[in-house]
Amino acid sequence: MSAYEGLGGKTDSSVAGVAAAFELLHTALLVHDDVIDKDFVRRGKPNIPGRYRDLAKSNGADDETADHHGLSAAVVAGDLALFYSYRMIDHAGLPEEARAQLLQLMDEALFASAAGELLDLDYSGAVTVPTVDSILEMARLKTAVYSFEVPLKVGAVLAGASAETIDALGDFGREIGTAYQIVDDLLGVFGDPLATGKSTTSDLREGKRTVLVAHAVTSDLWKQIEGLFGSATLSDHEADELRHVFDASGARAFAEGLLAEHVGRAEAVLDLPVVPPALRRELQPMISDVLRRQR
Amino acid sequence: MSAYEGLGGKTDSSVAGVAAAFELLHTALLVHDDVIDKDFVRRGKPNIPGRYRDLAKSNGADDETADHHGLSAAVVAGDLALFYSYRMIDHAGLPEEARAQLLQLMDEALFASAAGELLDLDYSGAVTVPTVDSILEMARLKTAVYSFEVPLKVGAVLAGASAETIDALGDFGREIGTAYQIVDDLLGVFGDPLATGKSTTSDLREGKRTVLVAHAVTSDLWKQIEGLFGSATLSDHEADELRHVFDASGARAFAEGLLAEHVGRAEAVLDLPVVPPALRRELQPMISDVLRRQR
Repeated sequence: MSAYEGLGGKTDSSVAGVAAAFELLHTALLVHDDVIDKDFVRRGKPNIPGRYRDLAKSNGADDETADHHGLSAAVVAGDLALFYSYRMIDHAGLPEEARAQLLQLMDEALFASAAGELLDLDYSGAVTVPTVDSILEMARLKTAVYSFEVPLKVGAVLAGASAETIDALGDFGREIGTAYQIVDDLLGVFGDPLATGKSTTSDLREGKRTVLVAHAVTSDLWKQIEGLFGSATLSDHEADELRHVFDASGARAFAEGLLAEHVGRAEAVLDLPVVPPALRRELQPMISDVLRRQR
Repeated sequence: MSAYEGLGGKTDSSVAGVAAAFELLHTALLVHDDVIDKDFVRRGKPNIPGRYRDLAKSNGADDETADHHGLSAAVVAGDLALFYSYRMIDHAGLPEEARAQLLQLMDEALFASAAGELLDLDYSGAVTVPTVDSILEMARLKTAVYSFEVPLKVGAVLAGASAETIDALGDFGREIGTAYQIVDDLLGVFGDPLATGKSTTSDLREGKRTVLVAHAVTSDLWKQIEGLFGSATLSDHEADELRHVFDASGARAFAEGLLAEHVGRAEAVLDLPVVPPALRRELQPMISDVLRRQR
């Protein structure tokens, strides 16, 4: 909607339908991501797996059965959401050409996100830690494409923008989406759980592969804490030791530098001549929002 | 394809594309069903969860991690297949009206199958065994609609059949699809694993709710074996005891009677005047195929 309105589009029910379709695609992928991560809480509340797990428990199921019941219901729910996201594009009443272009973009979003999810699985299962570039590519595919790049491009397509402006929005989305993920990884280790609603031990306990980790493993200090990283029984004290190494090894500063770099590139896109001032005004707050989370 | 050709349709690439789209929808739902059932084998071979589990194991993952890796990869694979099934209908090059009608039918198939899957989850988690009618409704939603009813109706729509013929094909599909499920449940207890490739203890171990069970629980004999049904550690000898009760209580004969009833109704549909002889000749073998599995 920001891209569309920033390019002079007037919101009508077709555009709102398309925006809702992408919101539903996003929901579908989050629901299935929760299945893959065995998460029962999202945004501080029980998610679909959580609700159906609780329902099964209240019907007398044991813990393991209840967990699986919750995750299974979420597989089904995600399928419905995924299918209906496509269907909503179809029902938005768009001219045939725009419809075909949007479905192609949605296709790219889903395919990228599937590739990113598989890379994430491979990386978490691997003994070695992937390089920073591999981690960034995974983050781009898994998060940036469907959350930022494609929705922004879709808004531009609907507003009848030029190919150059559409590409610029894709570039902006990639940079800001990657920045978003770096902030997320930093918050997962150094954030304030009360402010962010995000635990600062769960990424460490599950051994999540992030740019922080990809950098820290290249330091001599890593050997001190190698055995702690990914330990399911990590204590608060041990988590502090890990944090100390992420800091002392320069990994934190490196991630913050990387963040600044991607934010800088996102800002540079907004200064291109193909980005009209009204669009710049719409998108500028996205940068501030991403950065504000970190503080 | 049977319905389409039986109604005089000449196969071209659009029709083949639609048939492939439904095959892919079927695949997507089977892949996610395997996730829900934690199955690592299908049709006697490692399925997607099985292949990715083995890959994770060969990369050094422990059993639990490898299982989850396999199931997670299958969540992603099923999402892609589901999305592309829709996309294939879109790419089949159909006239707008047929395309809209087919997407509506695909929508019904997915929605029914999601409802059936949720009912199945609820029934397997419940302490009480549902009635025969509830089991049949669940089987219809979970299996008959997307495997039989909707694909047959789609073939009729593509052949330009009358609303009466389309409805008759839906009725035929419901009856034969329900018959298929009853045969499957009988084979799951009384079949020859070597001939069917289907274990005759796994349904009993997981306490699968079938028409056999729904009938057997109404018998006084059930109390003798209540504790064995659904026992994960069921021995071969105990499985024999269960089989004996399914037989002696009349549950087996009841299920066989029900099967004959649904087959009879499917045959009756084929005798309706709205079903032309060529269509009857195409569909008759589906009945024999379903019955042949049982022998």
